[in-house]
Amino acid sequence: MDDSTLEFTSSLEVDSKLAFYDVMGSLAHVRMLKACGIIPADDADRIAGGLKEILKEMENGDFRLDYSLEDIHTNVEFSLTQRIGPAGGKLHTGRSRNDQVAVDFRMYLRDEALKAVEAADGLMMSLVRVAEENGNAVMPGFTHMQHAQPVSLAQHMLAHAFRFSRDADRFLDAFRRMDKCPLGAAALAGTTYPIDRKMTASALGFREPTENSMDTVSDRDFVTELAYCAAQTAIHLSSLCEEFVLWSSQECGFVEMDDKYTTG
Amino acid sequence: MDDSTLEFTSSLEVDSKLAFYDVMGSLAHVRMLKACGIIPADDADRIAGGLKEILKEMENGDFRLDYSLEDIHTNVEFSLTQRIGPAGGKLHTGRSRNDQVAVDFRMYLRDEALKAVEAADGLMMSLVRVAEENGNAVMPGFTHMQHAQPVSLAQHMLAHAFRFSRDADRFLDAFRRMDKCPLGAAALAGTTYPIDRKMTASALGFREPTENSMDTVSDRDFVTELAYCAAQTAIHLSSLCEEFVLWSSQECGFVEMDDKYTTG
Amino acid sequence: MDDSTLEFTSSLEVDSKLAFYDVMGSLAHVRMLKACGIIPADDADRIAGGLKEILKEMENGDFRLDYSLEDIHTNVEFSLTQRIGPAGGKLHTGRSRNDQVAVDFRMYLRDEALKAVEAADGLMMSLVRVAEENGNAVMPGFTHMQHAQPVSLAQHMLAHAFRFSRDADRFLDAFRRMDKCPLGAAALAGTTYPIDRKMTASALGFREPTENSMDTVSDRDFVTELAYCAAQTAIHLSSLCEEFVLWSSQECGFVEMDDKYTTG
Amino acid sequence: MDDSTLEFTSSLEVDSKLAFYDVMGSLAHVRMLKACGIIPADDADRIAGGLKEILKEMENGDFRLDYSLEDIHTNVEFSLTQRIGPAGGKLHTGRSRNDQVAVDFRMYLRDEALKAVEAADGLMMSLVRVAEENGNAVMPGFTHMQHAQPVSLAQHMLAHAFRFSRDADRFLDAFRRMDKCPLGAAALAGTTYPIDRKMTASALGFREPTENSMDTVSDRDFVTELAYCAAQTAIHLSSLCEEFVLWSSQECGFVEMDDKYTTG
Repeated sequence: MDDSTLEFTSSLEVDSKLAFYDVMGSLAHVRMLKACGIIPADDADRIAGGLKEILKEMENGDFRLDYSLEDIHTNVEFSLTQRIGPAGGKLHTGRSRNDQVAVDFRMYLRDEALKAVEAADGLMMSLVRVAEENGNAVMPGFTHMQHAQPVSLAQHMLAHAFRFSRDADRFLDAFRRMDKCPLGAAALAGTTYPIDRKMTASALGFREPTENSMDTVSDRDFVTELAYCAAQTAIHLSSLCEEFVLWSSQECGFVEMDDKYTTG
Repeated sequence: MDDSTLEFTSSLEVDSKLAFYDVMGSLAHVRMLKACGIIPADDADRIAGGLKEILKEMENGDFRLDYSLEDIHTNVEFSLTQRIGPAGGKLHTGRSRNDQVAVDFRMYLRDEALKAVEAADGLMMSLVRVAEENGNAVMPGFTHMQHAQPVSLAQHMLAHAFRFSRDADRFLDAFRRMDKCPLGAAALAGTTYPIDRKMTASALGFREPTENSMDTVSDRDFVTELAYCAAQTAIHLSSLCEEFVLWSSQECGFVEMDDKYTTG
Repeated sequence: MDDSTLEFTSSLEVDSKLAFYDVMGSLAHVRMLKACGIIPADDADRIAGGLKEILKEMENGDFRLDYSLEDIHTNVEFSLTQRIGPAGGKLHTGRSRNDQVAVDFRMYLRDEALKAVEAADGLMMSLVRVAEENGNAVMPGFTHMQHAQPVSLAQHMLAHAFRFSRDADRFLDAFRRMDKCPLGAAALAGTTYPIDRKMTASALGFREPTENSMDTVSDRDFVTELAYCAAQTAIHLSSLCEEFVLWSSQECGFVEMDDKYTTG
Repeated sequence: MDDSTLEFTSSLEVDSKLAFYDVMGSLAHVRMLKACGIIPADDADRIAGGLKEILKEMENGDFRLDYSLEDIHTNVEFSLTQRIGPAGGKLHTGRSRNDQVAVDFRMYLRDEALKAVEAADGLMMSLVRVAEENGNAVMPGFTHMQHAQPVSLAQHMLAHAFRFSRDADRFLDAFRRMDKCPLGAAALAGTTYPIDRKMTASALGFREPTENSMDTVSDRDFVTELAYCAAQTAIHLSSLCEEFVLWSSQECGFVEMDDKYTTG
């Protein structure tokens, strides 16, 4: 392969974020292969042992990426084979790169979605606290930057809080919709091995397996949905910050930012 | 006002789609004003009578828009006052243009969201029928346009069906999230009249009133969320159609489109 | 053809804006066909006569669109044949719908690009006038809404003027790039008739014919480029207007908008 | 400052790409300050010496970034002061962070624009070569994936070449438009020091200085314009690649990709 081809197709810089999830997915898969008697118990144990070593190295920051290998999945595989020899190859039984990538990506974004929900909740709590602590403060309510009616600061802060509550709600809907396990779809048509899809789904914390193998390997709806959720949240954050910028102006003078949160 | 200002600010060409919802919203509002004793029953009845006349004209296509009035709301008001005289002005008691526009827009998009769900359901049923009627047909499964594994046509059709089922699910989530009635938020700070928000919400088929008046008049999340839902659905439709275009080629020859659905 | 197919594929609501350009393009084409001796002079004259009648009706607003015909091009053709009989069909000699649509679209957007340049120029002149008439006015220069340095209003107005001058410059570059005539590319591979592409290009005010027939019929770069130019201009307009909104606030009180340009 | 504030506002991960340009801009500025007699020649020489040391370290990959400093500009300044002491502070005479960032960003994107032009030219030459070497090859010309007319492979390859020639042309227009030097605009209102803007502009290879100081520090049009140019080019690249994917299919079999440029 030409160097330029590798450089162009390499996703390692991006998908190293999937490292943890890739190992976890493989662990669930190999335990299922063992439980279903698809590969010898010995090989399965050796694979699981190697994967756990890799996981520990990742946690300690000792796992070294090899940039001549195009992605994180190849890096993990290569490292596994170096540790336990050709038995490592049996990890691919009944699995393809397609469903492997799909499960990694889902697990990663499932966690990111939950982090977003937690962050939105934290922000709502802060807004509620400001509302509670300034219950009597009154300020101008603006329409098109003209004074319209007086409003309480509490009312204004809670307006922002309700925006973020919808954002959190959207992230949770997206989470629920993506919470199905792709493993078993293989390349696109499933596999003839007698795998147990419910077992891997359950081991990885998914509600259930996905329904259709061709849809499973091509579905990236969950990515666009989270991108929308994040964009809408960012609009709400921008609106909140823009108000603080305006309220901090000499013309308004409604708030003063703590030095801890300002720069030159 | 300068003509160019009217031309620039007029939204009539777009918001005439809200005409029906605008009248319905006003009917619910005026009945609540009567029930709560906020305006005289006589005036309320006259307003309701005038609005029902307007509604009938709209249904018959007889309601004429006056393009010198900047939007559909002003058109309806002006027409009402011409019919029943100054009593028409009492329709604004305890309501502002801001919550009025918000309720119209929500009702309109609530209906559009449900239409999208129905359309997606219809398409899924068609795909399921094709799958059932061609259960044994086998075709190449492609990865990057290369033959990968044989798949059944049924499997392929159902892959598309599952995509549209997620789309319908998203539209329903968006519907549920927007299904709260803005009436009563007024300009931005609510109203001092003793209105009954649950009554108008219920009359217009909303689950409940919105919670925060400032959030209510500025919230347009439901628009971006439906825009996202529609965009994702369009991507799925495009993918389905693109396949039919490809499969209709001389090179593939997998399908032949009925003349009823083709053009030059 | 099924009604739903017509409804879906019809572009008449949009492309009726191309009506004038469609007739002009056909006039140039038929005169060239006559000059090159490709169709009999009699037929060419009859076609030109019919097209000129249609043009006059369009100018008077008398040209009626038939919505059972899918686009403006079909409407013009059908109307032409009704007027002059089967000779109308000879208009298609050496031309396809593909290069016809391409030339219409370019002529339309060429005019729109020039209108944008004129509008930007007019706005720049207004800004320069404000700068000249208020040469001595001093106001705060803001960074992040904080007072930074005093600036002259003139300097501020000219900052906006320079933005619009870049916008006009971009529209002119786009104009220059798209100013090549697609006629003669036919469906995608040109034509075997001995047409004179320079003659049609020149008659329609294009600098020269396009170079490659396959590129010509698929090229829509000029559309995306103008879309970008318009979007960037809109950002600049929004920035100007946002400042006026802010400056009109009670907090700032820097400007007062004339009632002619404000609404409730 | 709170750690979270630094983390949020830090741009170092992104703007380290500007390191080279930042030093070059400072070198031009300090030489101008010396030539105009604004700072003592001794100090100017010491600053220039320190900057050249930093430049050398950057070229060797030895320049270490300090992530507790929020951006590349602060990193360079801090390193300069460590080398030559408080004289380093004089580098800021008649310059602000605002025009400094603006000039760095322009120089960086000016180079990127030229790289894009070169890359487009290289691709065009490749397409022309394929056209020349396969002058007689004939293939189907498609409309909507249906065989329409036979075309030569040369014609098809040149269609792509003309697309990239417009892309290169657009990058060059953008280059010309952005080729003005922001230095001297300072924070937003210029400086009272008797600086020589033509000298710095010329030293950094700009055609001329920008015209309006307020416009200069806020103008990021050149970024959106290059983003548009890149997006349009990417669409053309995608179209070319998509054809190769399709032509490589078993159904078409028109081309075979060299193993050097394919992956699993």
